[in-house]
Parts: sequence; C-alpha cells; structure tokens
Amino acid sequence: MDEVKVIEIKKSVFEDNSKDADALRKELKSKGVYLLNLMSSPGSGKTTTLIRTLNLLKDKLRIAVMEADIDSDVDAVKIREATGVPSIQLHTGGMCHLDAEMTRQGLAGVDIDGLDLVILENVGNLVCPAEFDTGAVRNAMILSVPEGHDKPLKYPLMFSVCDVVVINKIDVLPYFDFDLDKCREYVHMRNPRARVIPICAKTGEGVDVFAQWLLDQVNEWKQQ
Amino acid sequence: MDEVKVIEIKKSVFEDNSKDADALRKELKSKGVYLLNLMSSPGSGKTTTLIRTLNLLKDKLRIAVMEADIDSDVDAVKIREATGVPSIQLHTGGMCHLDAEMTRQGLAGVDIDGLDLVILENVGNLVCPAEFDTGAVRNAMILSVPEGHDKPLKYPLMFSVCDVVVINKIDVLPYFDFDLDKCREYVHMRNPRARVIPICAKTGEGVDVFAQWLLDQVNEWKQQ
Repeated sequence: MDEVKVIEIKKSVFEDNSKDADALRKELKSKGVYLLNLMSSPGSGKTTTLIRTLNLLKDKLRIAVMEADIDSDVDAVKIREATGVPSIQLHTGGMCHLDAEMTRQGLAGVDIDGLDLVILENVGNLVCPAEFDTGAVRNAMILSVPEGHDKPLKYPLMFSVCDVVVINKIDVLPYFDFDLDKCREYVHMRNPRARVIPICAKTGEGVDVFAQWLLDQVNEWKQQ
Repeated sequence: MDEVKVIEIKKSVFEDNSKDADALRKELKSKGVYLLNLMSSPGSGKTTTLIRTLNLLKDKLRIAVMEADIDSDVDAVKIREATGVPSIQLHTGGMCHLDAEMTRQGLAGVDIDGLDLVILENVGNLVCPAEFDTGAVRNAMILSVPEGHDKPLKYPLMFSVCDVVVINKIDVLPYFDFDLDKCREYVHMRNPRARVIPICAKTGEGVDVFAQWLLDQVNEWKQQ
C-alpha cells in the first residue's frame, strides 16, 4: 500500500474564526458534505471507535477521514488499512487544535466531490479544540471509562459544545470507580440535549447505536 | 474546613517566556524552594498519585500544592482533605497551559517562605503544557495504562521535556493491550535520560519509588 497523504497545517491568518466556520459550513452544505468533528483526550479510543463506525457505515455513505495529529501518521494508516475508507493525515506541527481555516486546508487534500460525510479526528485534547469551531455540522466526543466520570465538571466547555458524548471502554467498568449515571447527569449539566452513548470499541458493543445516530444525522441534514 | 483558596490566572504579558522562566527558577532557588511541574492527560490519575506521594513525603519535606484547572476546585479540596498539605486552586479560565508568569501568579497565593517543595499540577493536556517552561526545576508526567503505550509517538514534545514518566494504573495491565517494554522504548526515543516508573496510585504500588526519586531530586538540588 502506498504511503498515506500527509498535510502540514499552517497557522490561520483569519481573525474571525466563527465567521469563517459558518462560511465553511455553507460551502460544505452546498456540496452535500456533512462534516463531523470528533474530539477526545489522548488514548480514549477515537481511532478504534472510528474504525468500527466506518465499517458499519461505509456501504451506506461515501466517507473520508481526516486524522489530525501533532506529528505521527499512525492513525491515518491504521484507519485506511482496517476499513478501506480514504484517510489523510493532518500534521498540526505542535498546534493543539484545528480551527475552520485549518480544517479547510485539510479538506483541500480530500477529494470531497460526491462524498456524504467527512469525519475530522481532532487533536487529542479536552481543552483547546472545544474553543474553535471547525465548521462541522456536529461535534462528537469520546470519554473513556478510565478517565473518570467527573470530566464534565473539569472540562465544561468541551461537554457544552458536544452534541453526542460516547462513553468508551465500558468493558472495564468493573475495574474502575466510574458511575455511568453520575456521568450522564454531569454531561447533561453542561448540555441538557447531549446524547450519551455507552460503547466498547474493542468488542463493538454499542457502536451500532453511535453509527445509527450519525447516519440519521447525515440523512436529516441532507433533507434540510 | 474552610474553603480552598482560588486564584484566577490572567494571561501573561511577557513575550519571552523562557527568559521569564529562568528568572523564576533563580528566584525560587534563592529561597530554597524546588518547583515540580506535573503534567498528564485528563483522567490519568494525577491527583490520586499526588495524594499518595504527599503522604509519603509530608514528614520529610515542607510542601505546598498548586492545582491548575480550567474551572473546578475539586482537586485542591481533595488533596487538602486527604493529606493536610496546603493546596490552592489556580483557575486558568479556559487557558490550556501555564507559563512562567502564570505560575508566578499562583506562587503569590502560596506562603512559600520555609517551603522545600511546591508541586504544580498543570492543566490536563499532553500538548500545550509541554510548550511552556513554567520555571520548574523538573518536569514530570503521568501516562496511564488505558491511554496506550503509543503516546510517546503521538505527543513527542511532552515526552521530550519530561525528566520522569510515571506509568499509572498498572493494576489494569491484564485488561489492556499495553506493552510496558515498548512504552519504555518509545519514551527513551524521545528522551534517553527519562526515568520510567510504573505505579498503581489506587493501591500505592510503586509510588514509593516515585516519592524517593522526588526526595532525592530536592535534596541534590538543595546542595547544588
């Protein structure tokens, strides 16, 4: 297999990111391409969750993936090999988030004509990515059981901006002091409308619920 | 118990953080106060590790703790209640890291006269805190088993700037695909001199090794 495409992302020059994000959203809408921004801490299982989700959706939607990472190309290669879905790597060169212009630089490396869905795997970080609108239609995040159920208390903005919170690694619930009900309550303190979906990306449990949520989102948005 | 002290940290006005960090290091040296900067992802167990470590060291060193967090006061209260060690909360107001000037703002809220050691628990984030010298003598980080052994590949700067990498949650090694030898190898790729210390903060296993490392560091530095 040939090497994965890597794009070195440059710092944005635009001052008004919100305006730029709205413009990008409109552009993508006119092309019928739904952009999902997926965020989480390092090590929460974003890539494994994505692989499972892509394998459930790839026959229903035309999808591409943009993997943002400080430096390595590990994830984009892994995703392409495990799913066959076109996947490119965005190098942020130490930058801790992506804004709309940086997302646009990434999209320029994807052949988006005819696509239904682009998933942006943002930099592993619960702080900075929450502050920058990428131009996505929806924000999703993954919180894994070992991180603890108190995270919505400690990273309020991230949980406020997310439309869906996937709770990953539920297979290890017996080994951690993680209270799923309390977590749900804290998530809803931040965003009462957020959908909470418990999954285990390793075994696949619950991933169909997330995949269905995403499929419904894309289909509803296409009809708007 | 009365409420924990909270300091709202403001954005730094200094342009040259490295210079400012060196100046802060010198000031602290003249007062005999060793500053340790402790970093990690959200949910890696920084606070639990700190509590164990403080309980091992509090009769040997005079210590204070600064807990940096976006918003909540959960950790400072927890640490003070569990150890009796003076602990204050730094609110970063959404900022994803602390630099030297922000650390200085925090230190102004600690009565440092006569202290041997101040531990700064930095914001939970593997990206931004690595970029800013806080003025600490040493940087420590905690990587937890559920995050995966590949993290030094994906967050190179963080692992390059750390003098010690504590591998936490080794009690759950049987439930995760985490290769301790590989992790050690990756850490040393980034920083050949980094000390790697496997621990379980929950049970206390190995925390004595980390506490001894820190005690030796402080004592050696005092004699320099």
